[in-house]
Amino acid sequence: MRTIQNVQAMRAWSREARKEGARIALVPTMGGLHAGHLSLVEIARRHADRVVASVFVNPTQFDRDDDFAGYPRDLARDQRLLAEAGIDVVFAPKPAAVYPEGAVTFVDVEDLSVLLCGAHRPGHFRGVATVVTKLFTIIEPDVGVFGEKDYQQLAIIRRLVRDLCLAVEIVGAPIVREADGLAMSSRNTHLDTPGRAAAVCLSRALLAAETLVADGEHDGATIEAAARAAIEAEPLAKLEYASLVDAEALVPVTTMIDRGVLALAVWVGKTRLIDNQMLVAKAASAERRSA
Amino acid sequence: MRTIQNVQAMRAWSREARKEGARIALVPTMGGLHAGHLSLVEIARRHADRVVASVFVNPTQFDRDDDFAGYPRDLARDQRLLAEAGIDVVFAPKPAAVYPEGAVTFVDVEDLSVLLCGAHRPGHFRGVATVVTKLFTIIEPDVGVFGEKDYQQLAIIRRLVRDLCLAVEIVGAPIVREADGLAMSSRNTHLDTPGRAAAVCLSRALLAAETLVADGEHDGATIEAAARAAIEAEPLAKLEYASLVDAEALVPVTTMIDRGVLALAVWVGKTRLIDNQMLVAKAASAERRSA
Repeated sequence: MRTIQNVQAMRAWSREARKEGARIALVPTMGGLHAGHLSLVEIARRHADRVVASVFVNPTQFDRDDDFAGYPRDLARDQRLLAEAGIDVVFAPKPAAVYPEGAVTFVDVEDLSVLLCGAHRPGHFRGVATVVTKLFTIIEPDVGVFGEKDYQQLAIIRRLVRDLCLAVEIVGAPIVREADGLAMSSRNTHLDTPGRAAAVCLSRALLAAETLVADGEHDGATIEAAARAAIEAEPLAKLEYASLVDAEALVPVTTMIDRGVLALAVWVGKTRLIDNQMLVAKAASAERRSA
Repeated sequence: MRTIQNVQAMRAWSREARKEGARIALVPTMGGLHAGHLSLVEIARRHADRVVASVFVNPTQFDRDDDFAGYPRDLARDQRLLAEAGIDVVFAPKPAAVYPEGAVTFVDVEDLSVLLCGAHRPGHFRGVATVVTKLFTIIEPDVGVFGEKDYQQLAIIRRLVRDLCLAVEIVGAPIVREADGLAMSSRNTHLDTPGRAAAVCLSRALLAAETLVADGEHDGATIEAAARAAIEAEPLAKLEYASLVDAEALVPVTTMIDRGVLALAVWVGKTRLIDNQMLVAKAASAERRSA
């Protein structure tokens, strides 16, 4: 496994691999690797001949300085885990390589970027869209693998790729969870013991909503209220939002006809956690089974 | 010469050419071709093995509906001229291929886009930056050739390429002028006979400023005033701006130390014309001669 820091060297590697006929997958990460990331690598390997993982803590997508400063950084550990996972290249550029001095160019995916997390983290998705565009133009992958835990990010990147006519197939990877249901996240390391125990309320809230929908509930407000109640039952947790939205447009779903995504953002102490679940309406789900 | 309308077919052609080791140049145009465009093709041929010209009237860079509706469109004529000029491919996509339905992704080069023309044509450079990014991601050229007549556009594209880590070398091509000095432009066809005669005031204004600078003038306001006076002497012309700016940052130059770009925008009837000239201060120019 090679580690490349230089933009030109990274592109040269990719172009050489393409010349040889290899299909290239990219797994973009901000490091702080966990089993969720490694599942992305596993999926990437199934879609391509060569796999590149980027490790880059992107400054432009942080809306809080303390979150950026405290984000877990341990490149040696990440390299070891990626080598074990069978990655071909780790692309770990310095910030100045990705953002040349005086960089003023940004990519905006309008509409989708101001909803849900975007409403609470101004500029976040602009930073995400910009850095992902750069990673795609540097590495020129055939496939990009992104986790479904960051559901809004995945929806934005799918739109970005379509809108900018990029030649990248976007693959979404299922959320990987701890034994008690907590979605894996680099930020989980910030939780203390009581916080870690409290954090299970997110997946519990999603399960409560899922159960309700399985029982035939179609009303968006009722479904959201069930999730909200599960968060509010946990004294250490503070709800930011619990929203049932359309899977592509991310706009609110007031009555669930077919399916919807229930998305949550919750603060546990100073740690912000997100999670989501695709919900399928009872009729639609029964139809699928009979189809 | 091939004409390609489809995005995937265009990219496939480029990737095949690259596989064969060919260096690819792109000359982006909005059609309405004139000798200025053909000079870009000539320069492109010197920088690459294969030359693609795009012909696409980009809807997102027009700030006035009448300008978009009236923009000269004659693909058959453009194809003929490009074939004669020895182009390999004309890329002439339909708007829906470049802007898929519901496209909401835009590229912004901040700061540079709100100055000069950007102050008078809101959204114009956002449209330019977005479509040029798409042309680059579709065609993946090694070289992009742009005319210096659209000086601000060229400066923005240079910045965009640097900021987004694109693998395209940007080449600026000198302004091509009619015998009387008028810079060639697709919009010149909109001028009636008196308008055509009046339009020479732009190059006359630049010449007046250049003469002043050659005589040792360093004061930005005085240089701009000389250009302004030449436009105001023409009854059919209406000045939008005459600004002496830094060649890269495009910010005003109050005292010319080394060099500056004098940029003009002028209305002649309902036609908006632009022109510019790089001015080199007397001392700097003398130094260069002695170097």
